[in-house]
Amino acid sequence: MNAAAAKELPIGVFDSGVGGLTVLKALREAMPHEDLIYLGDTARLPYGTKSPASISRYAGQATALLQQRNIKLLVVACNTASAVALETLRSQMDPLPVIGVVEPGAAAAVAARPAGRHLVLATEATVCLGAYRNALVSRDSRAAVTELACELLVSLAEEGWNDGSIAESIVLRYLSELPDSAREPDSVILGCTHFPLLKGTFEAVFDDTVAIVDSASTTAVAANELLDELSLGREATGGGNLTLLATDGATRFARVGGQFLGEELTWRDIEVVDL
Amino acid sequence: MNAAAAKELPIGVFDSGVGGLTVLKALREAMPHEDLIYLGDTARLPYGTKSPASISRYAGQATALLQQRNIKLLVVACNTASAVALETLRSQMDPLPVIGVVEPGAAAAVAARPAGRHLVLATEATVCLGAYRNALVSRDSRAAVTELACELLVSLAEEGWNDGSIAESIVLRYLSELPDSAREPDSVILGCTHFPLLKGTFEAVFDDTVAIVDSASTTAVAANELLDELSLGREATGGGNLTLLATDGATRFARVGGQFLGEELTWRDIEVVDL
Repeated sequence: MNAAAAKELPIGVFDSGVGGLTVLKALREAMPHEDLIYLGDTARLPYGTKSPASISRYAGQATALLQQRNIKLLVVACNTASAVALETLRSQMDPLPVIGVVEPGAAAAVAARPAGRHLVLATEATVCLGAYRNALVSRDSRAAVTELACELLVSLAEEGWNDGSIAESIVLRYLSELPDSAREPDSVILGCTHFPLLKGTFEAVFDDTVAIVDSASTTAVAANELLDELSLGREATGGGNLTLLATDGATRFARVGGQFLGEELTWRDIEVVDL
Repeated sequence: MNAAAAKELPIGVFDSGVGGLTVLKALREAMPHEDLIYLGDTARLPYGTKSPASISRYAGQATALLQQRNIKLLVVACNTASAVALETLRSQMDPLPVIGVVEPGAAAAVAARPAGRHLVLATEATVCLGAYRNALVSRDSRAAVTELACELLVSLAEEGWNDGSIAESIVLRYLSELPDSAREPDSVILGCTHFPLLKGTFEAVFDDTVAIVDSASTTAVAANELLDELSLGREATGGGNLTLLATDGATRFARVGGQFLGEELTWRDIEVVDL
Protein backbone atom coordinates (compact mmCIF):
# COMPACT_ATOMS: atom_id res chain seq x y z
CA MET A 1 0.00 0.00 0.00
CA ASN A 2 1.33 3.46 -0.80
CA ALA A 3 1.78 6.10 1.90
CA ALA A 4 -1.21 8.19 0.80
CA ALA A 5 -3.56 5.19 0.94
CA ALA A 6 -2.24 4.15 4.37
CA LYS A 7 -3.15 7.58 5.76
CA GLU A 8 -6.76 7.06 4.69
CA LEU A 9 -7.18 3.92 6.79
CA PRO A 10 -9.22 4.09 9.98
CA ILE A 11 -7.96 4.03 13.55
CA GLY A 12 -9.20 1.00 15.48
CA VAL A 13 -10.31 1.52 19.06
CA PHE A 14 -10.98 -1.42 21.33
CA ASP A 15 -12.59 -1.63 24.77
CA SER A 16 -14.34 -4.24 26.89
CA GLY A 17 -17.60 -2.32 26.60
CA VAL A 18 -18.83 1.25 26.43
CA GLY A 19 -16.26 2.87 28.74
CA GLY A 20 -13.77 3.31 25.90
CA LEU A 21 -16.24 5.65 24.22
CA THR A 22 -14.79 8.36 26.49
CA VAL A 23 -11.50 7.72 24.69
CA LEU A 24 -13.25 7.63 21.30
CA LYS A 25 -14.85 10.98 22.09
CA ALA A 26 -11.44 12.47 22.92
CA LEU A 27 -9.93 10.98 19.73
CA ARG A 28 -12.67 12.56 17.60
CA GLU A 29 -12.11 15.92 19.22
CA ALA A 30 -8.34 15.72 18.74
CA MET A 31 -8.50 14.31 15.17
CA PRO A 32 -11.87 15.17 13.60
CA HIS A 33 -10.82 14.02 10.12
CA GLU A 34 -9.75 10.51 11.07
CA ASP A 35 -12.08 7.59 10.42
CA LEU A 36 -12.62 5.57 13.58
CA ILE A 37 -13.80 1.98 14.16
CA TYR A 38 -14.76 1.20 17.73
CA LEU A 39 -15.21 -2.34 19.02
CA GLY A 40 -16.80 -2.90 22.44
CA ASP A 41 -16.61 -6.50 23.66
CA THR A 42 -19.93 -6.15 25.48
CA ALA A 43 -20.61 -9.90 25.40
CA ARG A 44 -17.70 -10.48 27.76
CA LEU A 45 -17.48 -7.30 29.80
CA PRO A 46 -16.35 -6.43 32.38
CA TYR A 47 -12.67 -7.27 31.95
CA GLY A 48 -11.74 -5.61 35.25
CA THR A 49 -12.59 -8.59 37.42
CA LYS A 50 -11.34 -11.32 35.06
CA SER A 51 -8.03 -13.22 35.00
CA PRO A 52 -5.05 -12.01 32.93
CA ALA A 53 -5.24 -15.16 30.77
CA SER A 54 -8.87 -14.52 29.80
CA ILE A 55 -8.29 -10.81 29.28
CA SER A 56 -5.34 -11.51 26.93
CA ARG A 57 -7.33 -14.03 24.91
CA TYR A 58 -10.31 -11.70 24.53
CA ALA A 59 -8.12 -8.72 23.62
CA GLY A 60 -6.30 -10.79 21.00
CA GLN A 61 -9.58 -11.81 19.37
CA ALA A 62 -10.84 -8.23 19.35
CA THR A 63 -7.61 -7.03 17.79
CA ALA A 64 -7.80 -9.71 15.08
CA LEU A 65 -11.28 -8.51 14.14
CA LEU A 66 -10.08 -4.91 13.85
CA GLN A 67 -7.06 -6.05 11.79
CA GLN A 68 -9.47 -7.59 9.28
CA ARG A 69 -10.96 -4.12 8.89
CA ASN A 70 -7.55 -2.70 7.87
CA ILE A 71 -6.80 -0.27 10.65
CA LYS A 72 -3.60 1.81 10.67
CA LEU A 73 -3.35 2.19 14.45
CA LEU A 74 -4.85 0.30 17.37
CA VAL A 75 -5.89 2.26 20.44
CA VAL A 76 -6.46 -0.03 23.42
CA ALA A 77 -9.04 2.12 25.17
CA CYS A 78 -9.47 -0.29 28.07
CA ASN A 79 -7.21 0.26 31.07
CA THR A 80 -7.41 -3.38 32.08
CA ALA A 81 -6.49 -4.67 28.60
CA SER A 82 -3.73 -2.05 28.38
CA ALA A 83 -2.35 -3.20 31.71
CA VAL A 84 -2.52 -6.90 30.89
CA ALA A 85 -2.05 -7.37 27.17
CA LEU A 86 -0.36 -4.37 25.53
CA GLU A 87 2.88 -6.16 24.60
CA THR A 88 1.02 -9.17 23.21
CA LEU A 89 -1.16 -6.91 21.10
CA ARG A 90 1.93 -5.03 19.86
CA SER A 91 3.39 -8.31 18.56
CA GLN A 92 0.08 -9.17 16.95
CA MET A 93 -0.24 -5.76 15.21
CA ASP A 94 3.44 -5.48 14.22
CA PRO A 95 4.59 -3.47 12.24
CA LEU A 96 1.54 -1.27 12.82
CA PRO A 97 1.47 0.80 16.01
CA VAL A 98 -0.51 0.18 19.20
CA ILE A 99 -1.20 2.68 21.94
CA GLY A 100 -2.71 1.96 25.35
CA VAL A 101 -4.25 4.28 27.93
CA VAL A 102 -1.91 3.58 30.86
CA GLU A 103 1.30 5.12 29.52
CA PRO A 104 -0.24 8.44 28.37
CA GLY A 105 -2.10 8.79 31.68
CA ALA A 106 1.03 8.12 33.70
CA ALA A 107 3.09 10.52 31.56
CA ALA A 108 0.52 13.30 32.04
CA ALA A 109 0.38 12.79 35.81
CA VAL A 110 4.16 12.90 36.16
CA ALA A 111 4.35 16.02 33.99
CA ALA A 112 1.61 17.71 36.05
CA ARG A 113 3.03 16.78 39.47
CA PRO A 114 6.75 15.91 39.41
CA ALA A 115 7.83 13.99 42.54
CA GLY A 116 4.14 13.88 43.37
CA ARG A 117 1.88 11.63 45.40
CA HIS A 118 -0.36 9.94 42.83
CA LEU A 119 -3.62 8.21 43.62
CA VAL A 120 -4.73 5.79 40.90
CA LEU A 121 -8.42 4.85 40.87
CA ALA A 122 -8.95 1.76 38.71
CA THR A 123 -10.48 -1.71 38.41
CA GLU A 124 -9.31 -4.67 40.43
CA ALA A 125 -7.32 -6.24 37.56
CA THR A 126 -5.51 -2.97 36.76
CA VAL A 127 -4.61 -2.49 40.43
CA CYS A 128 -3.47 -6.11 40.87
CA LEU A 129 -1.07 -5.75 37.98
CA GLY A 130 0.40 -2.50 39.28
CA ALA A 131 0.44 -1.16 35.73
CA TYR A 132 0.13 2.50 36.68
CA ARG A 133 2.62 2.13 39.54
CA ASN A 134 5.22 0.75 37.13
CA ALA A 135 4.50 3.36 34.48
CA LEU A 136 4.69 6.22 37.01
CA VAL A 137 7.81 5.07 38.84
CA SER A 138 9.69 4.28 35.62
CA ARG A 139 9.14 7.90 34.56
CA ASP A 140 9.72 9.56 37.94
CA SER A 141 11.59 7.61 40.59
CA ARG A 142 10.42 10.09 43.25
CA ALA A 143 6.73 9.42 42.50
CA ALA A 144 4.72 8.01 45.42
CA VAL A 145 1.89 5.84 44.15
CA THR A 146 -1.27 4.49 45.79
CA GLU A 147 -3.63 2.33 43.74
CA LEU A 148 -7.24 1.78 44.76
CA ALA A 149 -9.75 -0.63 43.16
CA CYS A 150 -13.18 1.02 42.87
CA GLU A 151 -15.39 -1.46 41.00
CA LEU A 152 -18.62 0.16 42.13
CA LEU A 153 -17.78 3.36 40.26
CA VAL A 154 -18.00 1.42 36.99
CA SER A 155 -21.65 0.48 37.60
CA LEU A 156 -22.35 3.96 38.90
CA ALA A 157 -21.18 5.50 35.61
CA GLU A 158 -23.11 2.90 33.57
CA GLU A 159 -26.23 3.77 35.54
CA GLY A 160 -25.61 7.44 34.74
CA TRP A 161 -25.55 8.44 38.43
CA ASN A 162 -22.45 10.55 37.87
CA ASP A 163 -23.08 13.39 40.28
CA GLY A 164 -24.69 14.00 43.61
CA SER A 165 -24.59 12.63 47.10
CA ILE A 166 -24.57 8.91 46.29
CA ALA A 167 -21.58 9.24 43.95
CA GLU A 168 -19.71 11.40 46.48
CA SER A 169 -20.47 9.03 49.37
CA ILE A 170 -19.16 6.06 47.40
CA VAL A 171 -15.91 7.85 46.49
CA LEU A 172 -15.45 8.96 50.11
CA ARG A 173 -16.06 5.43 51.36
CA TYR A 174 -13.38 4.07 49.03
CA LEU A 175 -10.99 6.79 50.18
CA SER A 176 -11.68 5.89 53.81
CA GLU A 177 -9.98 2.53 53.11
CA LEU A 178 -6.68 4.36 52.52
CA PRO A 179 -4.10 5.38 55.11
CA ASP A 180 -4.29 9.09 55.98
CA SER A 181 -1.13 9.86 54.02
CA ALA A 182 -2.68 8.68 50.74
CA ARG A 183 -5.95 10.57 51.11
CA GLU A 184 -4.46 13.90 50.11
CA PRO A 185 -2.73 13.21 46.82
CA ASP A 186 -1.19 15.69 44.38
CA SER A 187 -2.77 13.93 41.43
CA VAL A 188 -5.72 11.59 40.98
CA ILE A 189 -5.41 9.38 37.90
CA LEU A 190 -8.71 8.14 36.48
CA GLY A 191 -7.42 4.67 35.60
CA CYS A 192 -10.67 3.31 34.19
CA THR A 193 -12.37 4.64 31.08
CA HIS A 194 -15.67 4.91 32.93
CA PHE A 195 -14.34 7.38 35.43
CA PRO A 196 -14.14 10.57 33.31
CA LEU A 197 -17.95 10.63 33.57
CA LEU A 198 -17.55 11.08 37.33
CA LYS A 199 -15.12 13.96 36.96
CA GLY A 200 -17.53 16.39 38.63
CA THR A 201 -17.74 14.11 41.64
CA PHE A 202 -13.97 13.82 41.93
CA GLU A 203 -13.69 17.60 41.68
CA ALA A 204 -16.22 17.94 44.50
CA VAL A 205 -14.42 15.42 46.72
CA PHE A 206 -10.80 16.43 46.18
CA ASP A 207 -9.16 19.73 46.91
CA ASP A 208 -8.82 22.28 44.08
CA THR A 209 -5.06 21.84 44.04
CA VAL A 210 -5.31 18.17 43.03
CA ALA A 211 -4.61 17.45 39.35
CA ILE A 212 -7.29 15.13 38.02
CA VAL A 213 -5.74 13.21 35.15
CA ASP A 214 -8.09 11.70 32.64
CA SER A 215 -6.43 9.08 30.45
CA ALA A 216 -9.00 9.56 27.66
CA SER A 217 -7.77 13.01 26.66
CA THR A 218 -4.09 12.23 27.31
CA THR A 219 -4.35 9.13 25.10
CA ALA A 220 -5.94 11.13 22.28
CA VAL A 221 -3.06 13.61 22.36
CA ALA A 222 -0.53 10.75 22.36
CA ALA A 223 -2.29 9.01 19.45
CA ASN A 224 -2.29 12.22 17.44
CA GLU A 225 1.43 12.74 18.04
CA LEU A 226 2.21 9.13 17.15
CA LEU A 227 0.39 9.34 13.81
CA ASP A 228 2.26 12.56 12.99
CA GLU A 229 5.56 10.95 13.88
CA LEU A 230 4.84 7.97 11.62
CA SER A 231 3.41 10.20 8.86
CA LEU A 232 0.18 8.25 9.15
CA GLY A 233 -2.12 11.16 10.01
CA ARG A 234 -4.90 11.84 7.55
CA GLU A 235 -5.05 15.15 5.66
CA ALA A 236 -7.41 17.64 7.29
CA THR A 237 -10.20 17.11 4.78
CA GLY A 238 -13.07 14.60 4.57
CA GLY A 239 -13.08 11.54 6.79
CA GLY A 240 -14.51 11.71 10.28
CA ASN A 241 -16.57 8.55 9.80
CA LEU A 242 -17.45 6.53 12.84
CA THR A 243 -18.23 2.79 12.89
CA LEU A 244 -19.46 1.25 16.12
CA LEU A 245 -19.19 -2.51 16.66
CA ALA A 246 -20.27 -4.48 19.72
CA THR A 247 -20.28 -8.17 20.52
CA ASP A 248 -23.68 -8.01 22.22
CA GLY A 249 -26.65 -5.90 23.19
CA ALA A 250 -26.97 -3.04 20.67
CA THR A 251 -29.89 -1.51 22.60
CA ARG A 252 -28.04 -1.21 25.88
CA PHE A 253 -24.86 -0.14 24.06
CA ALA A 254 -26.79 2.70 22.43
CA ARG A 255 -28.44 3.83 25.66
CA VAL A 256 -25.43 3.70 27.97
CA GLY A 257 -22.85 4.42 25.27
CA GLY A 258 -24.61 7.58 24.19
CA GLN A 259 -23.83 9.10 27.59
CA PHE A 260 -20.18 8.16 27.28
CA LEU A 261 -19.81 9.42 23.72
CA GLY A 262 -21.81 12.53 24.52
CA GLU A 263 -24.31 12.09 21.69
CA GLU A 264 -27.55 10.23 21.17
CA LEU A 265 -27.24 6.72 19.71
CA THR A 266 -29.85 4.20 18.65
CA TRP A 267 -29.40 0.45 18.26
CA ARG A 268 -29.30 0.96 14.49
CA ASP A 269 -25.97 2.79 14.89
CA ILE A 270 -24.34 -0.34 16.29
CA GLU A 271 -23.25 -3.36 14.27
CA VAL A 272 -23.26 -6.53 16.37
CA VAL A 273 -20.31 -8.82 15.57
CA ASP A 274 -19.26 -12.23 16.81
CA LEU A 275 -15.86 -12.84 18.35
CA MET B 1 -28.87 -46.91 36.26
CA ASN B 2 -30.88 -48.34 39.15
CA ALA B 3 -33.00 -46.11 41.40
CA ALA B 4 -30.64 -46.34 44.39
CA ALA B 5 -27.66 -45.24 42.30
CA ALA B 6 -29.62 -42.36 40.76
CA LYS B 7 -30.35 -40.99 44.24
CA GLU B 8 -26.62 -40.81 44.95
CA LEU B 9 -25.94 -38.48 42.03
CA PRO B 10 -25.21 -34.82 42.75
CA ILE B 11 -27.47 -31.84 42.15
CA GLY B 12 -26.02 -29.40 39.61
CA VAL B 13 -26.36 -25.70 40.31
CA PHE B 14 -25.57 -23.12 37.67
CA ASP B 15 -25.20 -19.35 37.86
CA SER B 16 -23.50 -16.61 35.89
CA GLY B 17 -21.12 -15.97 38.77
CA VAL B 18 -21.09 -16.00 42.54
CA GLY B 19 -24.63 -14.76 43.16
CA GLY B 20 -26.07 -18.26 42.88
CA LEU B 21 -24.08 -19.22 45.95
CA THR B 22 -26.96 -17.74 47.96
CA VAL B 23 -29.11 -20.45 46.36
CA LEU B 24 -26.42 -23.08 46.96
CA LYS B 25 -26.31 -22.08 50.63
CA ALA B 26 -30.08 -22.49 50.90
CA LEU B 27 -29.92 -25.87 49.12
CA ARG B 28 -27.28 -27.13 51.56
CA GLU B 29 -29.37 -26.00 54.51
CA ALA B 30 -32.51 -27.66 53.12
CA MET B 31 -30.77 -30.87 51.98
CA PRO B 32 -27.53 -31.34 53.95
CA HIS B 33 -26.97 -34.88 52.64
CA GLU B 34 -27.12 -34.08 48.96
CA ASP B 35 -23.91 -33.72 46.97
CA LEU B 36 -23.80 -30.42 45.10
CA ILE B 37 -21.82 -29.25 42.07
CA TYR B 38 -21.88 -25.51 41.49
CA LEU B 39 -20.76 -23.89 38.25
CA GLY B 40 -20.27 -20.12 38.11
CA ASP B 41 -19.70 -18.76 34.60
CA THR B 42 -17.47 -16.00 35.95
CA ALA B 43 -15.64 -15.59 32.62
CA ARG B 44 -18.81 -14.24 31.04
CA LEU B 45 -20.67 -12.62 33.91
CA PRO B 46 -22.79 -10.61 34.27
CA TYR B 47 -25.66 -12.12 32.29
CA GLY B 48 -28.08 -9.42 33.46
CA THR B 49 -27.08 -6.89 30.82
CA LYS B 50 -26.58 -9.31 27.90
CA SER B 51 -28.90 -10.28 25.06
CA PRO B 52 -31.26 -13.28 25.31
CA ALA B 53 -29.39 -15.05 22.47
CA SER B 54 -26.05 -14.84 24.28
CA ILE B 55 -27.58 -15.80 27.63
CA SER B 56 -29.21 -18.90 26.10
CA ARG B 57 -25.98 -19.99 24.43
CA TYR B 58 -23.95 -19.58 27.62
CA ALA B 59 -26.55 -21.35 29.77
CA GLY B 60 -26.67 -24.26 27.32
CA GLN B 61 -22.90 -24.67 27.48
CA ALA B 62 -22.90 -24.55 31.27
CA THR B 63 -25.66 -27.15 31.42
CA ALA B 64 -23.76 -29.46 29.04
CA LEU B 65 -20.74 -29.32 31.33
CA LEU B 66 -22.85 -30.24 34.36
CA GLN B 67 -24.51 -33.06 32.39
CA GLN B 68 -21.06 -34.56 31.81
CA ARG B 69 -20.71 -34.72 35.59
CA ASN B 70 -23.85 -36.85 35.85
CA ILE B 71 -26.22 -34.65 37.81
CA LYS B 72 -29.73 -35.79 38.75
CA LEU B 73 -31.30 -32.31 38.89
CA LEU B 74 -30.30 -28.94 37.46
CA VAL B 75 -31.00 -25.85 39.54
CA VAL B 76 -30.72 -22.69 37.43
CA ALA B 77 -29.69 -20.37 40.25
CA CYS B 78 -29.46 -17.32 38.00
CA ASN B 79 -32.62 -15.24 37.68
CA THR B 80 -31.62 -13.96 34.27
CA ALA B 81 -30.91 -17.45 32.88
CA SER B 82 -34.13 -18.74 34.49
CA ALA B 83 -36.06 -15.93 32.82
CA VAL B 84 -34.48 -16.40 29.41
CA ALA B 85 -33.54 -20.02 28.95
CA LEU B 86 -35.47 -22.33 31.29
CA GLU B 87 -37.49 -24.10 28.59
CA THR B 88 -34.43 -24.61 26.39
CA LEU B 89 -32.52 -26.08 29.31
CA ARG B 90 -35.46 -28.36 30.15
CA SER B 91 -35.30 -29.83 26.61
CA GLN B 92 -31.56 -30.23 26.93
CA MET B 93 -31.79 -32.03 30.32
CA ASP B 94 -34.84 -34.14 29.44
CA PRO B 95 -35.87 -36.53 31.04
CA LEU B 96 -34.02 -35.16 34.09
CA PRO B 97 -35.66 -32.28 35.96
CA VAL B 98 -34.73 -28.59 35.87
CA ILE B 99 -35.80 -25.95 38.37
CA GLY B 100 -35.30 -22.21 38.04
CA VAL B 101 -35.53 -19.45 40.64
CA VAL B 102 -38.32 -17.37 39.10
CA GLU B 103 -41.24 -19.79 39.57
CA PRO B 104 -40.57 -20.61 43.26
CA GLY B 105 -40.08 -16.91 44.06
CA ALA B 106 -43.32 -15.96 42.34
CA ALA B 107 -45.22 -18.80 44.03
CA ALA B 108 -43.97 -17.75 47.46
CA ALA B 109 -44.92 -14.11 46.89
CA VAL B 110 -48.41 -15.00 45.74
CA ALA B 111 -48.87 -17.32 48.73
CA ALA B 112 -47.67 -14.63 51.14
CA ARG B 113 -49.72 -11.79 49.66
CA PRO B 114 -52.75 -12.96 47.63
CA ALA B 115 -54.10 -10.23 45.35
CA GLY B 116 -51.07 -8.24 46.42
CA ARG B 117 -49.02 -5.46 44.95
CA HIS B 118 -45.63 -7.02 44.18
CA LEU B 119 -42.43 -5.12 43.56
CA VAL B 120 -39.79 -7.16 41.74
CA LEU B 121 -36.19 -5.95 42.05
CA ALA B 122 -34.04 -7.58 39.39
CA THR B 123 -31.49 -7.12 36.62
CA GLU B 124 -32.23 -5.37 33.36
CA ALA B 125 -32.57 -8.61 31.34
CA THR B 126 -34.97 -10.18 33.86
CA VAL B 127 -37.11 -7.04 33.90
CA CYS B 128 -37.11 -6.73 30.09
CA LEU B 129 -38.43 -10.25 29.74
CA GLY B 130 -41.19 -9.72 32.31
CA ALA B 131 -40.50 -13.20 33.68
CA TYR B 132 -41.71 -12.46 37.21
CA ARG B 133 -44.71 -10.53 35.94
CA ASN B 134 -45.81 -13.53 33.89
CA ALA B 135 -45.15 -16.00 36.69
CA LEU B 136 -47.05 -13.88 39.23
CA VAL B 137 -50.06 -13.07 37.07
CA SER B 138 -50.43 -16.66 35.82
CA ARG B 139 -50.73 -17.73 39.48
CA ASP B 140 -52.88 -14.86 40.72
CA SER B 141 -54.78 -12.81 38.17
CA ARG B 142 -55.39 -10.11 40.79
CA ALA B 143 -51.67 -9.58 41.40
CA ALA B 144 -50.38 -6.07 40.60
CA VAL B 145 -46.76 -6.21 39.51
CA THR B 146 -44.06 -3.56 39.20
CA GLU B 147 -40.60 -4.57 38.01
CA LEU B 148 -37.54 -2.43 38.61
CA ALA B 149 -34.03 -2.96 37.21
CA CYS B 150 -31.40 -2.25 39.90
CA GLU B 151 -28.03 -3.12 38.34
CA LEU B 152 -26.03 -1.14 40.88
CA LEU B 153 -27.20 -3.42 43.71
CA VAL B 154 -25.32 -6.29 42.06
CA SER B 155 -21.98 -4.47 42.33
CA LEU B 156 -22.89 -3.29 45.81
CA ALA B 157 -23.34 -6.88 47.01
CA GLU B 158 -20.15 -7.99 45.25
CA GLU B 159 -18.27 -5.20 47.01
CA GLY B 160 -19.73 -6.42 50.32
CA TRP B 161 -21.30 -3.04 51.11
CA ASN B 162 -24.56 -4.69 52.11
CA ASP B 163 -25.70 -2.42 54.91
CA GLY B 164 -25.55 1.20 55.88
CA SER B 165 -26.32 4.56 54.43
CA ILE B 166 -24.88 4.05 50.93
CA ALA B 167 -26.90 0.87 50.35
CA GLU B 168 -30.07 2.50 51.69
CA SER B 169 -29.58 5.65 49.59
CA ILE B 170 -29.15 3.59 46.44
CA VAL B 171 -32.32 1.56 47.09
CA LEU B 172 -34.27 4.75 47.86
CA ARG B 173 -33.00 6.36 44.69
CA TYR B 174 -34.20 3.40 42.62
CA LEU B 175 -37.57 3.53 44.36
CA SER B 176 -37.85 7.25 43.60
CA GLU B 177 -38.06 6.29 39.89
CA LEU B 178 -41.37 4.55 40.57
CA PRO B 179 -44.84 6.10 40.57
CA ASP B 180 -46.14 6.72 44.12
CA SER B 181 -48.57 3.80 43.90
CA ALA B 182 -45.74 1.28 43.40
CA ARG B 183 -43.56 2.52 46.25
CA GLU B 184 -45.64 0.87 48.96
CA PRO B 185 -45.87 -2.75 47.86
CA ASP B 186 -47.23 -5.72 49.81
CA SER B 187 -44.30 -7.88 48.77
CA VAL B 188 -40.79 -7.18 47.52
CA ILE B 189 -39.35 -10.02 45.46
CA LEU B 190 -35.56 -10.22 45.41
CA GLY B 191 -35.32 -11.21 41.76
CA CYS B 192 -31.54 -11.41 41.56
CA THR B 193 -29.44 -13.90 43.49
CA HIS B 194 -27.19 -11.12 44.75
CA PHE B 195 -29.97 -9.37 46.58
CA PRO B 196 -30.47 -11.66 49.59
CA LEU B 197 -27.19 -10.20 50.88
CA LEU B 198 -28.90 -6.81 51.03
CA LYS B 199 -31.88 -8.13 52.97
CA GLY B 200 -31.06 -5.98 56.00
CA THR B 201 -31.10 -2.90 53.80
CA PHE B 202 -34.48 -3.81 52.28
CA GLU B 203 -35.85 -4.41 55.79
CA ALA B 204 -34.62 -0.96 56.80
CA VAL B 205 -36.12 0.75 53.75
CA PHE B 206 -39.50 -1.00 53.56
CA ASP B 207 -42.25 -1.06 56.11
CA ASP B 208 -42.44 -4.02 58.54
CA THR B 209 -45.65 -5.23 56.90
CA VAL B 210 -43.92 -5.84 53.55
CA ALA B 211 -43.11 -9.50 52.80
CA ILE B 212 -39.54 -9.72 51.51
CA VAL B 213 -39.37 -12.80 49.30
CA ASP B 214 -35.99 -14.29 48.73
CA SER B 215 -35.92 -16.70 45.79
CA ALA B 216 -32.88 -18.55 47.20
CA SER B 217 -34.74 -20.14 50.10
CA THR B 218 -37.98 -20.64 48.13
CA THR B 219 -36.05 -22.43 45.37
CA ALA B 220 -34.36 -24.73 47.88
CA VAL B 221 -37.74 -25.74 49.29
CA ALA B 222 -39.08 -26.36 45.78
CA ALA B 223 -36.02 -28.43 44.80
CA ASN B 224 -36.38 -30.56 47.92
CA GLU B 225 -40.06 -31.20 47.18
CA LEU B 226 -39.32 -32.03 43.55
CA LEU B 227 -36.68 -34.63 44.47
CA ASP B 228 -39.09 -36.22 46.94
CA GLU B 229 -41.82 -36.35 44.31
CA LEU B 230 -39.50 -38.03 41.82
CA SER B 231 -38.04 -40.34 44.49
CA LEU B 232 -34.64 -38.89 43.66
CA GLY B 233 -33.77 -37.56 47.13
CA ARG B 234 -30.72 -39.06 48.78
CA GLU B 235 -31.02 -41.01 52.01
CA ALA B 236 -30.24 -38.91 55.08
CA THR B 237 -26.76 -40.34 55.57
CA GLY B 238 -23.36 -39.45 54.14
CA GLY B 239 -23.09 -37.14 51.15
CA GLY B 240 -23.00 -33.39 51.66
CA ASN B 241 -20.02 -32.96 49.33
CA LEU B 242 -19.57 -29.64 47.59
CA THR B 243 -17.72 -29.10 44.30
CA LEU B 244 -17.18 -25.53 43.12
CA LEU B 245 -16.42 -24.85 39.46
CA ALA B 246 -15.81 -21.47 37.84
CA THR B 247 -14.90 -20.43 34.33
CA ASP B 248 -12.46 -17.76 35.52
CA GLY B 249 -10.79 -16.06 38.44
CA ALA B 250 -10.61 -18.54 41.34
CA THR B 251 -9.12 -15.90 43.64
CA ARG B 252 -11.93 -13.41 43.20
CA PHE B 253 -14.50 -16.22 43.25
CA ALA B 254 -13.17 -17.36 46.63
CA ARG B 255 -13.09 -13.86 48.12
CA VAL B 256 -16.48 -12.61 46.94
CA GLY B 257 -18.14 -16.04 46.88
CA GLY B 258 -17.21 -16.74 50.49
CA GLN B 259 -19.50 -13.87 51.55
CA PHE B 260 -22.36 -15.27 49.50
CA LEU B 261 -21.92 -18.84 50.71
CA GLY B 262 -21.37 -17.68 54.26
CA GLU B 263 -18.10 -19.53 54.74
CA GLU B 264 -14.47 -18.84 54.05
CA LEU B 265 -13.16 -20.07 50.68
CA THR B 266 -9.68 -20.06 49.17
CA TRP B 267 -8.79 -20.30 45.50
CA ARG B 268 -7.80 -23.94 46.08
CA ASP B 269 -11.47 -24.73 46.73
CA ILE B 270 -12.39 -23.72 43.19
CA GLU B 271 -11.73 -25.75 40.05
CA VAL B 272 -11.41 -23.53 36.98
CA VAL B 273 -13.06 -25.06 33.89
CA ASP B 274 -13.32 -23.98 30.27
CA LEU B 275 -16.66 -23.56 28.52
